[in-house]
Amino acid sequence: MPLQIITSVEEMQNYSSVLRAKGKTIGFVPTMGYLHEGHAALIRHSCLEADITIVSVFVNPTQFGPNEDFSRYPRDFERDCHVAEEAGAAIMYAPTVEEMYPNGYSSMVLAGKESQVFDGVSRPGHFNGVVTVVAKLFNAVKPHIAVFGQKDYQQTLVIKRLVKDLDFDIRIIIAPTERELNGLARSSRNVYLSEHDRENASLIYKALTAAVDARQQGEKNAHSLQAIMQKILMTIPHVHIEYAQAVHADTLMETLDFSDDNSIVFLVAIRLGTTRLIDNFVWHP
Amino acid sequence: MPLQIITSVEEMQNYSSVLRAKGKTIGFVPTMGYLHEGHAALIRHSCLEADITIVSVFVNPTQFGPNEDFSRYPRDFERDCHVAEEAGAAIMYAPTVEEMYPNGYSSMVLAGKESQVFDGVSRPGHFNGVVTVVAKLFNAVKPHIAVFGQKDYQQTLVIKRLVKDLDFDIRIIIAPTERELNGLARSSRNVYLSEHDRENASLIYKALTAAVDARQQGEKNAHSLQAIMQKILMTIPHVHIEYAQAVHADTLMETLDFSDDNSIVFLVAIRLGTTRLIDNFVWHP
Repeated sequence: MPLQIITSVEEMQNYSSVLRAKGKTIGFVPTMGYLHEGHAALIRHSCLEADITIVSVFVNPTQFGPNEDFSRYPRDFERDCHVAEEAGAAIMYAPTVEEMYPNGYSSMVLAGKESQVFDGVSRPGHFNGVVTVVAKLFNAVKPHIAVFGQKDYQQTLVIKRLVKDLDFDIRIIIAPTERELNGLARSSRNVYLSEHDRENASLIYKALTAAVDARQQGEKNAHSLQAIMQKILMTIPHVHIEYAQAVHADTLMETLDFSDDNSIVFLVAIRLGTTRLIDNFVWHP
Repeated sequence: MPLQIITSVEEMQNYSSVLRAKGKTIGFVPTMGYLHEGHAALIRHSCLEADITIVSVFVNPTQFGPNEDFSRYPRDFERDCHVAEEAGAAIMYAPTVEEMYPNGYSSMVLAGKESQVFDGVSRPGHFNGVVTVVAKLFNAVKPHIAVFGQKDYQQTLVIKRLVKDLDFDIRIIIAPTERELNGLARSSRNVYLSEHDRENASLIYKALTAAVDARQQGEKNAHSLQAIMQKILMTIPHVHIEYAQAVHADTLMETLDFSDDNSIVFLVAIRLGTTRLIDNFVWHP
């Protein structure tokens, strides 16, 4: 079945209502487009779990700060359709900014407590923009399940909080991060990087695995774990390290020393020139 | 079929999913309980429009201010069940505060621009509490239609804004205000009033009808229309008039002189002792 493109909220709602009335389960993969192997993996994951997979492509202006890369965010809708179809999606939902935020639009969803740290600090308003657009997409697509990538770890907690707090009847699935051969997490923003940058950015992966290895070998002091990451990240030329931290995986709360049964997330955000890169590893006891 | 009582979010979601899978349409009447003839009329309206009507009873703490009447708001769940069943409801959804706002709850929906005036000023945070709980109830009940009373006129605009902005696929129906014989709008809060207060409060109705009559006879100046209401309301002993205004019916925007084709809403809020009463009339050209 060829990929069907839907651009209006109402058409999307009607389409999903018909699918549900037929007893079909709907899987949903929301994206900002410029799809790569990471998105394809999310789509394939959705296809395994649901009868019909809907992919959205919407570069959401309200989750970008005034000095961020909204206008230059990479876009290639034709290729996105190919990638989505190849991976098994049935529907591409691609509303315009005017369709999503028409004249008079003035409501907002405020993200919960997991949004108050890390990227919530460095990108003020970002998570409110995310949960608002995700709530809108959920109401238009009406999925049974929605698949998000673990690469945006804090976002996965923020989305789970949204779903729990606002009683969305949607199961959230977190799919593992896809990586390039050198370990760099796949991201649409990697296109901003030179060949050389990409090689240097792979040190993020090395920093994360080194910290995980240390924890595996018994290191439980947060500062020591963080120092291991810092030391490696600092070898990246011209790097600006935004954060490199080890915190509780379920709450993002800081601690001095982890106990044996704590799950830990290692979170990194750096800037290389004007490109911001994030990555993470979760360690379970 | 006897009224079925559901108290958990998950059970409500599952119940509604089953109804929808059977092809049933769901009508929804959200209330804060202490049901009266006004609520019964909303329920009957819903029964006309949908196969199954679900009534919720939840006194939502987040829409009350610190000095408002949350703790003393009248409650009588048993009678509510009788009224709902009599009027034709099939399900009573009555979650506890802990079920709605469990530990860790921290998200919020911010109401749109229609919430910025009138009760949004006199009751700060009220409409954010309303739209948040309504969003949660919508996601739990999953209705096709939802019926609200015109008595809370500003709330009807705020709810319509919520539905439009967040893309809820729900049709909002506004049902006319039910009144006591003397014209007083039915409200759960009328129970706070003495016999004598109730008689005095009927002057709200007289103020509104006088203003509508004046408009009908050609008066288009907002101040003149307001003065007509003020003059009558001021005859209520010990009254505190919060507002008595004539504004554009669709936006709540003020104007000096209405034009021939403007729809007007006449809005009144007064306090009698510690009891706050609101009412309104809409005039269409």
